[in-house]
This record gives sequence, C-alpha cells and structure tokens, in this order.
Amino acid sequence: MKKIGVLLSGCGNMDGSEIHESVLSLLFIDKAGATAVCMAPEMTQTETVNHPKGETTGEKRQVLAEAGRIARGKIRPITDVNVENLDALIIPGGAGPIKNLSNYAEKGADLEVRHDVTMLIRAFYTAGKPIGAICIAPVVLAKALNAHSPTVTIGDDATTIENLKTFGASHEAQPVDGICIDEANKLVTTPAYMCGPGIADIAPGIEKLVNQVIAMTKG
Amino acid sequence: MKKIGVLLSGCGNMDGSEIHESVLSLLFIDKAGATAVCMAPEMTQTETVNHPKGETTGEKRQVLAEAGRIARGKIRPITDVNVENLDALIIPGGAGPIKNLSNYAEKGADLEVRHDVTMLIRAFYTAGKPIGAICIAPVVLAKALNAHSPTVTIGDDATTIENLKTFGASHEAQPVDGICIDEANKLVTTPAYMCGPGIADIAPGIEKLVNQVIAMTKG
Repeated sequence: MKKIGVLLSGCGNMDGSEIHESVLSLLFIDKAGATAVCMAPEMTQTETVNHPKGETTGEKRQVLAEAGRIARGKIRPITDVNVENLDALIIPGGAGPIKNLSNYAEKGADLEVRHDVTMLIRAFYTAGKPIGAICIAPVVLAKALNAHSPTVTIGDDATTIENLKTFGASHEAQPVDGICIDEANKLVTTPAYMCGPGIADIAPGIEKLVNQVIAMTKG
Repeated sequence: MKKIGVLLSGCGNMDGSEIHESVLSLLFIDKAGATAVCMAPEMTQTETVNHPKGETTGEKRQVLAEAGRIARGKIRPITDVNVENLDALIIPGGAGPIKNLSNYAEKGADLEVRHDVTMLIRAFYTAGKPIGAICIAPVVLAKALNAHSPTVTIGDDATTIENLKTFGASHEAQPVDGICIDEANKLVTTPAYMCGPGIADIAPGIEKLVNQVIAMTKG
C-alpha cells in the first residue's frame, strides 16, 4: 500500500493548515487505497487567530499539537520522518505554510522556508518521489526547490505570481478544478481556496492532485 | 436555496467537533446545492486535549471560536439563530456533543443537554424540520427529543445503546455506510467514526445522511 506523507502546519485557515483542504487530502488518499502519514514541524505557531473575529489572540500554541486535531492524534514530528518509508508528500494550504512553514506572509518574495521543511521537501525530490501542494503551499514548495526551476499554480493572484518568478519558479494558470503538473520535477499543484469559492468547488482539484501524485509514485 | 444549520461544538475529535465528520457534512451540503450555516454555543470548552498526546492541557478555549476554525470564520452563536430562516439541522460527532453540548461523557444515561442546545433542537422539531446527527451526536438528539420516542443509530456500542433505551429512545443497528431514518420524527443518523475505521469509510454514510435530510425539507 502506498504511503503518502501529509505535511500539516496547524489547524485553521488563518493560522494553520486549511482544514477543508487537509481533510479532503486525507479523504482522497484513503479513497485511492493509500495510507496518509501526517506530520508537522515542532514549533510554536507564529500567531494564534480567533477565526470568527479574525483577530490575533496572543496565545502560544504548538503547530504539531494543533495539526494533530486534523489527524485525530496520529501525527509525528517531521524530524522523525524517514522519507525512505514514504512514497510521496502532499502539503495542504492555509496560513500555516506562509506563517509557520515559511515567513512568506511577512516577507513576500524574500521568504525563507524553515530549514527542517526545506530538508524534508528536498529529500522527497532527491529520492525522485512526487510532491503535491495545495492553495498557497506551492510557494513553499517552489522556494525550497527553486534551483530546479519548478512550475506551479497558485490560481491567479498577481502578486504571488510575480513573487514566484523572482526566485526562479514559473507559474501556470489553472482554474479551481485544475491541476498543474511539472513532469520533470514530479510536482503537482492546485489552486483550491486561492480560487474557491466553496468546498464543493475545491474538492475535484484536490482529488485530481492526490490521484496524480499517487500515479507518479514508483513501483 | 436550502439552508442547513450545522451545529458545531469545538474543533477536534477529543474535545470538540470531529473535524472529518464536520468537513464532510459541509462538503456534501455544498455538493447538494444547499448552503451550510454554521453555529455553536457560547461557552468555555469542558476541557482542552493535546491530541497527539491524548492528554488534557488545562487551557481554557471557547467552543465558538474553536468551531469557527472548521467554518473558516463564518459562524454564529446558536442564540442568534432564527430557526425560521433554516430548513434543517445537522450535528456532527466527536467529543464536543458529549462534553460540550451535553455531559454524556461524564454522566452516561443521566446526561443533561445544555438548555440552549435543547431549545434549538426542539425548535427545529416543532417546526417540522428534519435533523441529522452523526457518530455519537444522536445521543444528544435523542435526549433532547426523548418525549417523542426517537429512533437513532450510533453503530454498535452496547453501553450507549443501553443508555439510549433508559431515556426512551430506540436504537437501530446500522453499518458505517448506513443511515437510520426515523420518518415520524424526521431524524436521520449515521454511525461514522462510531464504526470507522477510515475517512473514506465514513464518507458514504454522511453523504446519504445529508441528502436524506435535504430530501425531507419542505418546499
């Protein structure tokens, strides 16, 4: 059975992993007969947001513990992950990838991706294993692999597209139900809530992404 | 367009709404062309659990704010809900229904359902509007409406089935992909993670529940 790593970064679209995109990834991995292996970095969230109010609260929360809510408790630190035991990696979107996995929300084109996240992504890449990224998460993927001139989609956000180009990535426009496939680098991306508007709109693109990622795995 | 109330009770299977069941409810409501209207009680969570560790943390979190993560911020207090504007109600499972909406986790057959939650459920019932409940949430539904001898399913948990009977409810065994329909009371229930085991296993029952609830709405 194929094992697909799912890199989470908190729990909630405003300060962590986008919950719908994460759950749909888990659904379609399971539906495809593969096993999801959830993981997250060990770090304090950059911020905690009261979602109904849209305001930061000052609370200190741990990314791994919060992400564990989406995983029903079954989650491991990314430093405990052995890439040899996994067949692919999928990164859902939300504020988590741009506030926790990287500082894109603050730095824009000058973003830095966390060292352990960069190492994880590059380990999958070097092993020739496919990587999927959803919504805004392709920014993290593209930065970690920018030496390989990756092509990704983030929908149609002009500023983000411009930022991607400054560090050597190419952008391919895709609708919410489309996927961008970078065959040479084995990368698959879909806009999801970068386009939206609703959960039924983003589901087909995520299902295509999961199935494409699994199709690109070896053996 | 039909408007379906979704009663949430936190964010996470160990101290709030079960995230997968909640997100699948939102998915299938949207897929059916209806609109989900998320709501939650204004209260402090009974407890906060570190999900990877399975341990309570002592943190005080608000049910409405945490449930708002699942709703991407769009959520209202249940006391602000006008049942006249909604066509049906769906209650996902998790620890939230038995720790926050009621004290079933502590009291078993002697549970009390929060007053505002009881009033909400009875308002839908009195208006002849259908109510769906998932996983362990049928216990809350059955207790709030026990005067009407409701029939529900919670899968096959012997203790819970016994408890349901003590307060006047009947139990109908159903597999994970089945739904129990109480036509007379317009109630629809499905076991979901009471049976499991995986997210792809629980999805068909939740889709049937959502579609059945919508089919039972008026007009």
